[in-house]
Amino acid sequence: MNDMKDLVERITQRIQQMEKFEKFPIIINVSNRHVHLTKEHFEILFGTNVELTKLRDLMQPGQFAANETVTIVGPKGKFENVRIIGPLRKYTQIEISRTDSFVLGVKPPIRDSGNLTGSPGLIIIGPKGKIELNEGCIIALRHIHFTPQDAEKLGIKDKDYVRILAGKGKGRETIFSDVICRVSKEYATECHLDIDEANAANVDNGEYIYIVEKL
Amino acid sequence: MNDMKDLVERITQRIQQMEKFEKFPIIINVSNRHVHLTKEHFEILFGTNVELTKLRDLMQPGQFAANETVTIVGPKGKFENVRIIGPLRKYTQIEISRTDSFVLGVKPPIRDSGNLTGSPGLIIIGPKGKIELNEGCIIALRHIHFTPQDAEKLGIKDKDYVRILAGKGKGRETIFSDVICRVSKEYATECHLDIDEANAANVDNGEYIYIVEKL
Repeated sequence: MNDMKDLVERITQRIQQMEKFEKFPIIINVSNRHVHLTKEHFEILFGTNVELTKLRDLMQPGQFAANETVTIVGPKGKFENVRIIGPLRKYTQIEISRTDSFVLGVKPPIRDSGNLTGSPGLIIIGPKGKIELNEGCIIALRHIHFTPQDAEKLGIKDKDYVRILAGKGKGRETIFSDVICRVSKEYATECHLDIDEANAANVDNGEYIYIVEKL
Repeated sequence: MNDMKDLVERITQRIQQMEKFEKFPIIINVSNRHVHLTKEHFEILFGTNVELTKLRDLMQPGQFAANETVTIVGPKGKFENVRIIGPLRKYTQIEISRTDSFVLGVKPPIRDSGNLTGSPGLIIIGPKGKIELNEGCIIALRHIHFTPQDAEKLGIKDKDYVRILAGKGKGRETIFSDVICRVSKEYATECHLDIDEANAANVDNGEYIYIVEKL
């Protein structure tokens, strides 16, 4: 009898959590392949007397898509016109999709931003020079950026993992596990998927996901 | 009290079903873009005195990847060397990924094989001629082929929908909903995903999924 009461209690709590999540849609940003550069690398590629210039603001405060693009080259293929995301960072990082990885001929790990140890390198070519990286190419771990306020509302802490539901009712409904939550007052609340993930779930930029389970 | 007993009963049944599914891994076949042709269309593209020839057998009995390939052309782009899947069929159908659809510049619906009404056309070019289709281009609805024996074991009927788990423990675990089950004595038991779906879940040809829920 106590076992049953306990079970009903736990199910009730879980349902309440699901209802809370369902009422909190989170906007999707679909990331195409892109590059983050250090100041040193930017100067090798573009010269010392130029600045990275803004094409458009991204949703994350201070982040922007730059007008400047580079070519990235792997053992098997290359991509031209790969956009730089500004501002310049303390590390150079190339984020590609798994589809891209087969074109380039590299096997990048699935990683959180900045975690580059043991990742493959690529050649980056700019208008003024090129760099040969020993590491820095990753497939981005799918993730949600949260403001502290939104995270608090949902009971989410930095580095929690969740499952999210994408593409409901569009013929390819998908539940993505292994979604890492990053919470910071520097962030806006936004879910980042890459193009493979967006296409698998039949969703685009500006649509919404919601969390279905905290892992 | 009766409510609680009923709940425990239903949860127990659900757990038993999940355990049955978990013990039945189903092999994944990752489909790249490909074309099915009618005899009439094949003859326009390759001539009247030639036969479609086998490169390799596929897992589905009688189905094969042909040596022959075509070029498919859309309003924005094209793909060369697109493989024909044999044998020839009663309808011409082009199956592409959502990633491919952006390259070609078409918006195909997500459909089960053979359901082509209202789908966009493409131009198909072969060594001896070309055809301009009014319809026939789809993004394949993800699906599992079942032998009647395997379907029976799992309590699955033709046209049931299920959720499947792919890529467990590989950094991109994904639960795909909207997976249609097709049961026939003509089939081998096999799950077909396209390249976007496989890359989103970090899985390859020959790995396994299992069903987590019957919808």
